[in-house]
Amino acid sequence: MQKVHTYLKKEYPRFLEELKGYLSFPSVSAQGNKKEIQKCAQWLLAHCRGIGLSATLHKTDGNPVLVATTRIGAAMRTEKKPHFIVYGHYDVQPPEPLELWKTPPFVPTIRAGKLFARGASDNKGQHFAHLKAVEAYFKTKTLLPCDISFVIEGEEEVGSANLALFLRKNKKILTADGVIISDTTMPALNTPAITYALRGIAALEITLRGADRDVHSGSYGGSIENPAMALSHLLATLRDKKTGRILVRGFYDGVSTLTKAERKVLHSEPENDPAYYRDFLKVPCLFGEKGFSHIEQTTIRPTMEINGLASGYQGVGSKTIVPASAHAKLTMRLVPHQKPSAVIATVRRHLIAHCPKSVTLEIKRGHGTEPYLFEPTSNAARAATRAIERVFGASPRFIREGGSIPVVTDFKKILGLDCLLIGLALPDDNAHSPNEKFELANFKRGMTLGAELWQELSEI
Amino acid sequence: MQKVHTYLKKEYPRFLEELKGYLSFPSVSAQGNKKEIQKCAQWLLAHCRGIGLSATLHKTDGNPVLVATTRIGAAMRTEKKPHFIVYGHYDVQPPEPLELWKTPPFVPTIRAGKLFARGASDNKGQHFAHLKAVEAYFKTKTLLPCDISFVIEGEEEVGSANLALFLRKNKKILTADGVIISDTTMPALNTPAITYALRGIAALEITLRGADRDVHSGSYGGSIENPAMALSHLLATLRDKKTGRILVRGFYDGVSTLTKAERKVLHSEPENDPAYYRDFLKVPCLFGEKGFSHIEQTTIRPTMEINGLASGYQGVGSKTIVPASAHAKLTMRLVPHQKPSAVIATVRRHLIAHCPKSVTLEIKRGHGTEPYLFEPTSNAARAATRAIERVFGASPRFIREGGSIPVVTDFKKILGLDCLLIGLALPDDNAHSPNEKFELANFKRGMTLGAELWQELSEI
Repeated sequence: MQKVHTYLKKEYPRFLEELKGYLSFPSVSAQGNKKEIQKCAQWLLAHCRGIGLSATLHKTDGNPVLVATTRIGAAMRTEKKPHFIVYGHYDVQPPEPLELWKTPPFVPTIRAGKLFARGASDNKGQHFAHLKAVEAYFKTKTLLPCDISFVIEGEEEVGSANLALFLRKNKKILTADGVIISDTTMPALNTPAITYALRGIAALEITLRGADRDVHSGSYGGSIENPAMALSHLLATLRDKKTGRILVRGFYDGVSTLTKAERKVLHSEPENDPAYYRDFLKVPCLFGEKGFSHIEQTTIRPTMEINGLASGYQGVGSKTIVPASAHAKLTMRLVPHQKPSAVIATVRRHLIAHCPKSVTLEIKRGHGTEPYLFEPTSNAARAATRAIERVFGASPRFIREGGSIPVVTDFKKILGLDCLLIGLALPDDNAHSPNEKFELANFKRGMTLGAELWQELSEI
Repeated sequence: MQKVHTYLKKEYPRFLEELKGYLSFPSVSAQGNKKEIQKCAQWLLAHCRGIGLSATLHKTDGNPVLVATTRIGAAMRTEKKPHFIVYGHYDVQPPEPLELWKTPPFVPTIRAGKLFARGASDNKGQHFAHLKAVEAYFKTKTLLPCDISFVIEGEEEVGSANLALFLRKNKKILTADGVIISDTTMPALNTPAITYALRGIAALEITLRGADRDVHSGSYGGSIENPAMALSHLLATLRDKKTGRILVRGFYDGVSTLTKAERKVLHSEPENDPAYYRDFLKVPCLFGEKGFSHIEQTTIRPTMEINGLASGYQGVGSKTIVPASAHAKLTMRLVPHQKPSAVIATVRRHLIAHCPKSVTLEIKRGHGTEPYLFEPTSNAARAATRAIERVFGASPRFIREGGSIPVVTDFKKILGLDCLLIGLALPDDNAHSPNEKFELANFKRGMTLGAELWQELSEI
């Protein structure tokens, strides 16, 4: 193992340049730039092959899935090693609004020990650390105590719509003992964590239409519905102004409640201080569902957010029109035991019931993912704990996270595999925000952890 | 006069090409492209000089104002002819959304007797017809019974902020007997009109801010205000969902009511049929302030419209964020005797009172124009009626219009001049909408009317 660690240290400058290369692809899945996505996938394919992995790009109806495995040639059939999957995604969130980036999102730039780029921590940097750990085993001819298959997809940021089918089709090569995912956060730089719960998600888009074109607000204003006003009225019916509760009938059906003891654990950590949290987000005050703390609101409670609004003229100055249409993008975060399709159906019913007749309503259903909750006391969790303690010099905290990783549910349902979620990102890494970054310290520790993990996991 | 009419007929193909050239400048004042605005103004300057007018571009703090007059040399001082001002504007509305134009907005294109381009009817085509009428007098050496000064400005679509100061500074050269403006509509192709009332306008922009950046809706959603949701709640307080009444305290203060007889006149015309109107706008149904017809709602009642909404991610697919901010552009249309500043103040008070504490509120005041109402039985109106009857073979209808022309109030206040509003645009000309057009028949009749008008007006 010493050879592995020495290799990781020695080759680090090259790894950093490689990661920068990987981050320079604008592989934004939401914007459907197939050419850039393909380029990024091809780069990753070549890179995995260069490491010594047996790598293939699997076509899907959407973006390709990369599988890169240590099971090569004869070894694949004869050895009876444990087999783990490392999941990641090479697609990234849209970089907009571009004007808020200090350096361009696809020109990776290092400032004060942090690597800034879209995808730096979500998720290219995190799974790249695992790839480098395996490279170190290979290049130093150190025996890997297990087999590892990387499954790196290109549609995580748009709901992993094609991954379930991919998993079903490739069950044979994906028979394994567990899945490791580094795509979550740790509370602070020296506070590692294992995430044992994730929220689900359900997305939809609303369009209200009035006149068949934008019309002059002087000539026609006042005599026909203004779709932007109708949208405001409609959206306002979704959430109580004062209590923050979602007013959609049935929205909270089946939502699990926590015991007092569990709620107490949620609040025991210093980072959970509301004043610290408020200052971190720079909001005038915290606001959420009444009766729950901000930690609960973002982990054990379902929520509904408007992700985008658009109507009429948005440029500089004024354009005196009644807009023809108004649009809103909504996502709901779900907790056990909510189902995306049931939640979508209740919201849909609500929207139809509350939409004024003076406009037409179009609802487009988006992606959906079920919430996830797993056993934090499993053997795998204990093995990961030991590896984490060795690398970070601290025990991992077991946390619930507010985000969603669609594939976690798919791995469980289709392959019967639990996911070990060991995040290397920090809360201030600006995932999904301008100026996304990855701490270089965590890139290094991620590689070391990747190396240690296989030793521990193979012994359970 | 026969020479004048023959000239207009003979030179028409050239006039059309010239108008196309004029329309090819993207002189969008709202978007502040100074270079294109300047190019357009320079083109107009050269064109007026070519006609034989004495033309100057007057600098302002914004876009230049063109003055082109028939008062040349010695004539300016010695003759005692009547003097009229023709007002127009060479700036145009923003062309967006571009994808809805059948042909590009600044590539003027003729289809079925209509000239399509941004600015075709609002307002380049209309004042260009008047210019051509004067050209016909000059080139045929026909004696003009009056002097005419064209005042063509470049900021009408953004509220004519610098025109009042220009009028004040140039009172001397603008001493006149009346103003003629062709920047309104006529009810139908064979139904000419004189507009005797205009609504005023008051504009403002609202910005709500939450976190100092877009943040991950999974990690933070539910614990902080969503500015897009707060904006929906805030905007929803402005108008009653069912009655369409504006709920801002004091909004309707001072609004004049009409007599029963006046209201009856408003409804007597065939184009005022609600079914026709609904079909024209292709709306599911009409909607406006309860107790008033659509004609009243767009002429004698004040209104409030959302002209634009923007927040978060608006591209294809989804971006799971809580947006940092949300924006709305509002304009109110005012009727006698509302004042823009008083209305802005009431709306401002309302917004401040209703904005949740979980976001910060910024209100930016936009342009304002007072409503206008003039005497439809004046000598000038009667003279214009005779000219219109000769050209259109029909008497003009006297109408109120819902739009606003800021300068009309300025001409009255600063120069003491009444404006004669003789519109050549049609309701379906798509002013402020994609596929703006100008009927070539009205371009021709506009030129003829321009020629006849001076004969009649000079005799009163």
